[in-house]
Amino acid sequence: MSNNEEFLQKAAEIIGAENVVSPNTDTSYFDPYPLNTGRDHVAGVRPANTEHVQALVRLANETGTSLWTVSRGKNLGYGGSAPRTQDQVVLDLSRMDAIEHVDSELAYAVIQPGVTFFDLFDHIQENDLGLFVSVPALGWGSVLGNALDRGYGMSPYGDHVQQLCGLEVVLPDGSLMRTGMWALEDSPLANIFKGGFGPNIDQLFTQSNLGIVVRAGIWLMPFPEVFASGDIKVDRIEDLPILLDKIAELRRREIFQNNCLVGNVVRAGTMNGPRSRWYEGEGSIPDDVVEEMKAKMGIGHWNARFALYGEPGMIRERIRIITEEFDLPGFEIDVRVYEGKDGAPVSYAEIDERDQTTMAGVPTLKPLSTIGWYAEDGGHIDIAPLVPARGAEVLDFYQEVKALYTEYGFDLYIGYHVYARHLVHVTMIFFENGNEEQLARARALYEEVRKAAVRRGYTPYRGHIDNMDDIASEFLFNNHASLRFQERLKDALDPNGVIAPGKQGVWPERLRS
Amino acid sequence: MSNNEEFLQKAAEIIGAENVVSPNTDTSYFDPYPLNTGRDHVAGVRPANTEHVQALVRLANETGTSLWTVSRGKNLGYGGSAPRTQDQVVLDLSRMDAIEHVDSELAYAVIQPGVTFFDLFDHIQENDLGLFVSVPALGWGSVLGNALDRGYGMSPYGDHVQQLCGLEVVLPDGSLMRTGMWALEDSPLANIFKGGFGPNIDQLFTQSNLGIVVRAGIWLMPFPEVFASGDIKVDRIEDLPILLDKIAELRRREIFQNNCLVGNVVRAGTMNGPRSRWYEGEGSIPDDVVEEMKAKMGIGHWNARFALYGEPGMIRERIRIITEEFDLPGFEIDVRVYEGKDGAPVSYAEIDERDQTTMAGVPTLKPLSTIGWYAEDGGHIDIAPLVPARGAEVLDFYQEVKALYTEYGFDLYIGYHVYARHLVHVTMIFFENGNEEQLARARALYEEVRKAAVRRGYTPYRGHIDNMDDIASEFLFNNHASLRFQERLKDALDPNGVIAPGKQGVWPERLRS
Repeated sequence: MSNNEEFLQKAAEIIGAENVVSPNTDTSYFDPYPLNTGRDHVAGVRPANTEHVQALVRLANETGTSLWTVSRGKNLGYGGSAPRTQDQVVLDLSRMDAIEHVDSELAYAVIQPGVTFFDLFDHIQENDLGLFVSVPALGWGSVLGNALDRGYGMSPYGDHVQQLCGLEVVLPDGSLMRTGMWALEDSPLANIFKGGFGPNIDQLFTQSNLGIVVRAGIWLMPFPEVFASGDIKVDRIEDLPILLDKIAELRRREIFQNNCLVGNVVRAGTMNGPRSRWYEGEGSIPDDVVEEMKAKMGIGHWNARFALYGEPGMIRERIRIITEEFDLPGFEIDVRVYEGKDGAPVSYAEIDERDQTTMAGVPTLKPLSTIGWYAEDGGHIDIAPLVPARGAEVLDFYQEVKALYTEYGFDLYIGYHVYARHLVHVTMIFFENGNEEQLARARALYEEVRKAAVRRGYTPYRGHIDNMDDIASEFLFNNHASLRFQERLKDALDPNGVIAPGKQGVWPERLRS
Repeated sequence: MSNNEEFLQKAAEIIGAENVVSPNTDTSYFDPYPLNTGRDHVAGVRPANTEHVQALVRLANETGTSLWTVSRGKNLGYGGSAPRTQDQVVLDLSRMDAIEHVDSELAYAVIQPGVTFFDLFDHIQENDLGLFVSVPALGWGSVLGNALDRGYGMSPYGDHVQQLCGLEVVLPDGSLMRTGMWALEDSPLANIFKGGFGPNIDQLFTQSNLGIVVRAGIWLMPFPEVFASGDIKVDRIEDLPILLDKIAELRRREIFQNNCLVGNVVRAGTMNGPRSRWYEGEGSIPDDVVEEMKAKMGIGHWNARFALYGEPGMIRERIRIITEEFDLPGFEIDVRVYEGKDGAPVSYAEIDERDQTTMAGVPTLKPLSTIGWYAEDGGHIDIAPLVPARGAEVLDFYQEVKALYTEYGFDLYIGYHVYARHLVHVTMIFFENGNEEQLARARALYEEVRKAAVRRGYTPYRGHIDNMDDIASEFLFNNHASLRFQERLKDALDPNGVIAPGKQGVWPERLRS
């Protein structure tokens, strides 16, 4: 009997056989969009509560089993619920889905990792709690899982990891710890003040294999009185620097309140049917077809989307400033303002359907349709390096990336998420699942874009399970001092190396080559 | 020869004898306001650069010497430059005072720990860089030291630790590490994106003895076009809950942009001459005298100060909303708006002297005068527990604290720093240095207030060197799991326990009792 078999057998005694998932079954764990095919669907265990998690972690130490934590397993484009290596057993926290507490006055929630964005949104709407949930592109993922993996949404609270306040963590030895003020007994500060006393350890559990977060506090925005949604269309490709510089400047001046999203024509195309609607040829969609798509959709070469939140008078001023700043040839701006009735805060009933977006805090699965770009059974991988929010530098990188996409025959999907000092240069490579010729090209393109980014000192902020070691290896300063530091922490806290070995390139000593 | 003597002798060879400070000399290190008298002034070393720090840390490992890091040593009310124990040698980073780089477009600086708020402010003003420095109460302290100790200022960027981005750290073995994106070679992301890849380790070096930060990036606010300064006077003590609830709500709604400061009458009194100007009797100043002081100064029982930053139209709207919200009986509001000439951003020349406050980003030493309250040779200790930003709860705690100050015969100085979800309940105990009778009462009062806070689940966010163990001991969850976790990190990273033993209650194994 292998140690994993022993683990699964004993796990059944703890959590019930019905919550032990055998490999290669309907319910087992996998990457829905594998760039490298041929992996098996792996086994998993589904604890119902913290005591289960503790017992399973202790058991893993006994049997020498590696556990790979997923909250909802919806980390699409980064590996889904698949672990780094085939011998890892998935620790699936999706049954731990309690919304334990929502404080509508001080505006925070205490939740378990199985809570999805849909769950939290529905709970708040149904109970009329007056809070706004910051949501990422897809709403079926875990609120905590997203924040802990340093994912982001598109609202003023969109830097999700910064909203975490107070973590309850099962450590690699199975013991339980609370961070920050939550470590005081029965303190009302537990989830409202970041930082406890002494070295702040909360952030150690982000993109991490140092523990398993089983509960956390997360801050929520008070629901705004008024919501506005706006678009800026930019006609010419070469005006990208002006657009980005102005957006970042207005974000630094806090006129824009969220990370604006700037997309190109192909991105808009992916939201409007499969590729075949636009073009049937091989290679990258040619520039003249892109021009046709642009005309048909009535959009710009660059299309920025922003949103505004708050008081009517403040929103009016923001719109005035934004309109003035973008009063430029080839720029077109359109803003829709939604107010509540009789002075009450706006509700979703009053917001036009087209503006019920993630920026409005509405969880959705709509972007899933984009993966059907090349084929009905489609997949994608994200390449999302960070780039300084300097327009000229971004355009230069864009041109290099475009040339690479053309060379490898893929359509270039661009979405810039623009912050005050940096932007996330999200490109996607869409492909047909299992199409080996296309997958080989996709892998090669991914690697070329990654190298082009590295040459400029850019790096992704997350990565697919297959790319984690490569990304981690670029942090070269002083012979990888920061990675070696992370490894020292790993060895000190998880000497048996049972929690998520290889997560973000951090391996325990027994598996380090 | 003791191991400290050996250390100091060898240190002289590294940094020059003139940079080795002998104990009990003019330049040696001490607590200017000791609650417990009788300590010696201790020895120190003053490295000029990172290589010096590395060599000194390696030397400390060889000789078994404990080092206590200070940046400028101005941690007044928390121990000044004094180490936790008399055998610790102060590692004084004040000579490392280079402002290495300021990026006025993306709004950040890269600086060394010896840079004071005055230094950074002057550099930016002299070079007209268009940035705003968030400053704490006193301007002579270290910008990095304050942020790393999780101190705060009173501007929109006032949560200083959150502005750190990219640290260069000498680890306890003398090796050098960079955190986050700074670990990439020559990356333009080094100081503009928080978070690297994998477990985020930056915050481990705050309130910490796990390393010595020798350089860091810190984000700065673009200088606002317009600045406004406002006051709210509240006539009745019992209106505190309304005041605090409204301030916190307006902060959550981002109408207020900074942490407003609410002070009582005694606080205003300390800014206006010594106590003898107001009252000469023993015990707490009686309520009727407080009423007289209030009338003479023309203030309220509660006096809130806020500031506004940004576009003229936005500021106008903010003022309209704030004025409307505080249009209540017994509330009086006054706002001064400062605009630049001919559409240029406002400059300090245009701001009235009384509004050139820390909220305006002006570093100052004015509050130093308050310590002369009881005697010319005065001192103080801060008690600053965190309290949820719920007005009724704060008033209740206020009343308990007031009764304790009365019982122990001290004047109650209150300053509430009000954030979105919590406030810092700053009270000070002023005393005459060396007055043993008064010091004994001050120690007893401190302990009583601390215990009253603990009973409610409140705790300070920092502490005087003498109180660190007591504060740390209150983090009880699961048999002090978070402190034990911090100790495990300490033992793994600093096995000889050379860096700041006992900092925030975290001792290395060799000194743990």
